[in-house]
Amino acid sequence: MEKHTEEEVKKNFNKLHYTDLITTNSNGWKETEVFLKEIVEILLSYIKEQNDRSTKVLEFHHPEDMLKLIDLHIPEKGMSLEELLKSCKEVLHLGVRTGHPRFFNQISCGLDLVCMAGEWATATANTNMFTYEISPVFILMEKEVMRKMIDLIGWGPDEGDGIFTPGGAIANLYAMNSARHNFFPRCKPLGMTSIPTLCCFTSIDAHYSIKGAAAVLGIGTDNCFGIPVDRFGRMIPEALEQKIIECKKEGLYPFFVSATAGTTVYGAFDPLIQIADICEKYGTWFHVDAAWGGGLLLSPEHRYKLRGIERANSVTWNPHKLMGSLLQCSASFIRKEGLLFQTNQMSADYLFQQDKPYDVNYDTGDRSIQCGRRNDVLKLWLMWRSKGMEGYRTQINRLLDLAQYFTNKIKRTEGYEMVIEDPQFLNVCFWYVPRRLRNMPQKEKMARLEKIAPKIKGKMMERGTTMVGYQPDNNTPNFFRLIINNPATTKEDLDFLIEEIIDIAIDM
Amino acid sequence: MEKHTEEEVKKNFNKLHYTDLITTNSNGWKETEVFLKEIVEILLSYIKEQNDRSTKVLEFHHPEDMLKLIDLHIPEKGMSLEELLKSCKEVLHLGVRTGHPRFFNQISCGLDLVCMAGEWATATANTNMFTYEISPVFILMEKEVMRKMIDLIGWGPDEGDGIFTPGGAIANLYAMNSARHNFFPRCKPLGMTSIPTLCCFTSIDAHYSIKGAAAVLGIGTDNCFGIPVDRFGRMIPEALEQKIIECKKEGLYPFFVSATAGTTVYGAFDPLIQIADICEKYGTWFHVDAAWGGGLLLSPEHRYKLRGIERANSVTWNPHKLMGSLLQCSASFIRKEGLLFQTNQMSADYLFQQDKPYDVNYDTGDRSIQCGRRNDVLKLWLMWRSKGMEGYRTQINRLLDLAQYFTNKIKRTEGYEMVIEDPQFLNVCFWYVPRRLRNMPQKEKMARLEKIAPKIKGKMMERGTTMVGYQPDNNTPNFFRLIINNPATTKEDLDFLIEEIIDIAIDM
Repeated sequence: MEKHTEEEVKKNFNKLHYTDLITTNSNGWKETEVFLKEIVEILLSYIKEQNDRSTKVLEFHHPEDMLKLIDLHIPEKGMSLEELLKSCKEVLHLGVRTGHPRFFNQISCGLDLVCMAGEWATATANTNMFTYEISPVFILMEKEVMRKMIDLIGWGPDEGDGIFTPGGAIANLYAMNSARHNFFPRCKPLGMTSIPTLCCFTSIDAHYSIKGAAAVLGIGTDNCFGIPVDRFGRMIPEALEQKIIECKKEGLYPFFVSATAGTTVYGAFDPLIQIADICEKYGTWFHVDAAWGGGLLLSPEHRYKLRGIERANSVTWNPHKLMGSLLQCSASFIRKEGLLFQTNQMSADYLFQQDKPYDVNYDTGDRSIQCGRRNDVLKLWLMWRSKGMEGYRTQINRLLDLAQYFTNKIKRTEGYEMVIEDPQFLNVCFWYVPRRLRNMPQKEKMARLEKIAPKIKGKMMERGTTMVGYQPDNNTPNFFRLIINNPATTKEDLDFLIEEIIDIAIDM
Repeated sequence: MEKHTEEEVKKNFNKLHYTDLITTNSNGWKETEVFLKEIVEILLSYIKEQNDRSTKVLEFHHPEDMLKLIDLHIPEKGMSLEELLKSCKEVLHLGVRTGHPRFFNQISCGLDLVCMAGEWATATANTNMFTYEISPVFILMEKEVMRKMIDLIGWGPDEGDGIFTPGGAIANLYAMNSARHNFFPRCKPLGMTSIPTLCCFTSIDAHYSIKGAAAVLGIGTDNCFGIPVDRFGRMIPEALEQKIIECKKEGLYPFFVSATAGTTVYGAFDPLIQIADICEKYGTWFHVDAAWGGGLLLSPEHRYKLRGIERANSVTWNPHKLMGSLLQCSASFIRKEGLLFQTNQMSADYLFQQDKPYDVNYDTGDRSIQCGRRNDVLKLWLMWRSKGMEGYRTQINRLLDLAQYFTNKIKRTEGYEMVIEDPQFLNVCFWYVPRRLRNMPQKEKMARLEKIAPKIKGKMMERGTTMVGYQPDNNTPNFFRLIINNPATTKEDLDFLIEEIIDIAIDM
């Protein structure tokens, strides 16, 4: 029985509480509907504003000040629906608009609206991916999407198994753990003290999660060797081979090499074919961390950068990066049949019963280190359907064109200097050199530059008009790393950034 | 410029594509708005139906049949907005309604609508929890909510640190890894071969993720000892002490004890105070896996069941269980100042710079084994604000009353038998004995019962009117485990379940 009109309900929001909603009040449908629609209105305004260039990317406040602007406390008595709507609005207003076309700060950016719709539906369906029993459609969907991704990697039609994981770091952990189990299955029952001292290899520019996995797995970060890179940031295969030989001599057991397809800072692609050859020669596991670069497999024009990935024993690929999915959407692929299961199953018969009224091979719980596992596939599936293979090809190629445009432009613009002349991907690394530094001797200029990027960034965050990250790299002073990964970004947005930095810093 | 009316846009859905939405078409606001509102209409219908008892919990189809009912393929060309809406509707229609008031199958169930609204907003904000820079409000919110939870655990005002993790299994992994680092910080650089052989302890009824963590960390599942339980499923402290002494004699290093507050099957609470005493006596780390039971800390009437938790060195607590949050929402709490950071930081200066224009102590990336980390706090915060402390108290106490009601009722109903006479929590474990088995000798009856629960479950899934899980336990034949954790559930729903099972199975 719906007793009120929409207007009446809205007027009463200050007196209504969650207990008036349908789940706990069977007469509360109207209240539910109007409340949820009001939430959606707030979200729609946010999306509209975000796509308007005159909206700031952020309004920066230091933590102490932010705490004064927003009330975060958990109350004794429940708040009214009106107060909840207000909370929601405030929180969004004070956040950083990672979907803004001028947000270049992170690899994960942009807000794909179909993907977002999929995530809304995921929330409403609120299920758990561990069994077919309670996630029949999503389990099948995950299989379908996994198969498509495996095909793109280039493994055979019956090869490979995969699982969605909460982020690339954990996907890399899965890969390293699977590799260990592959060589030393006794480690699972008996532990590391029962097997030789393992060591692994990745480039010095690789993501820190490889070292992190070595720490968690009990291999030790000192046994994770950083291989030097060339001037483009690509692993030097000869150096890898030399290190493997050295480790063997020292009595270590080289079991795992992680090549990177799209490094975090420079967007470099390690030479996969040569690394695959070395892995084959020495019998080590060949992992490709394509968390960032994996999406290039969708571009017939650019997928050559990942040539050799089809020889990998495992692959990490995060659709929440180049494919533009909302966070989190990451996958770990293991080539060898059954290994994911053998590595991770703990015989929890009380959860994964074998006498169910359907084929329990569809259950995924025994292949995961998680028990409850979020549905990360629906949003990706819906988005992928919206674009099709063609749409992704166009979208990704366009982003690479934009990166080229930006690179060409700053090369011609006074004050800008490239850190690496010709970027291979969507990371463009550069310095901006204020006027008074330009004629200094190189050494002094570099020393001064160290403080320039943080200073520009500080001003940029105060203005809030755009956002781009910076970092140092060994002996290289702080430089900016621009990420072009939001399909909403246009050439004009890139022009804007170039001018904005000049405006902030020319006389710095 | 909005060129079309709502009706015109709707009529054109079959010709419109994602490229017509605002992110890639600056004239596409109307299309965006209408499309997203249509998605919301689908979700609202789903919610309305779900709260209507005449709607089925599921329509069961075997995987092969399901694949015929739904088209899951990824197309070459992108699909129209109309086709996307259709996809979305189909997927929801064929899924399992985990929020249905008669879904008793899983610990995580129910659909809190305020929490869901928070999750919608999370999707729209689409940010990453690793730095204050891009998640200023959510980082502060996480701190606030963590502090509240730590206060409830009972640690001191300056004690304890925590992080949201993707599920309880990974929260337990954090705890065990922190414990290892606490005793043997050299393991992080040098690996397990540099330290004594570790061993850990948990009850035989504990969640399998404790064993799983021992496997991942390279400790070995054989070094994770299962301690016997009493007839209520609670760890026997004397048996724990004996096992610790035994392990020491054998040269193992007992470093970690995990007590469970709310076991998965029986909902038992281990005697925390006695276990804490033993841990203190032998210098081992005291972890409490309160993934399921942690929410009881919100009930002044029932929190006594967790007495002693304040002495824990670490705690796992999943708000996506008793607190009713959407999946995923789990937290790992570590009592010792700085340990989470010391254990997990990998000095990734290229991501977590120290010269930022704000206090970088607010960045969380260095305390996590994840790099990108989902925002799991907004939905919890919004829901908690909606209920306040009072609302949770009422909600949780009511659920416990319902469990008592159900227990009393089936004890009086012919054919039902309790597995454990007096449940301590919201898990009610029982058999239903069909008429023709009732007078059999106990041994034969038990042997026959093994096949009854799966058979009932099969029929129940075909009917689709309700859903409850079953499992065996060592020598105990398959029994049902009812979970009462959806605030939408009423006494009538429980009565319905009791009758439905009788109807299905009385003559089985």
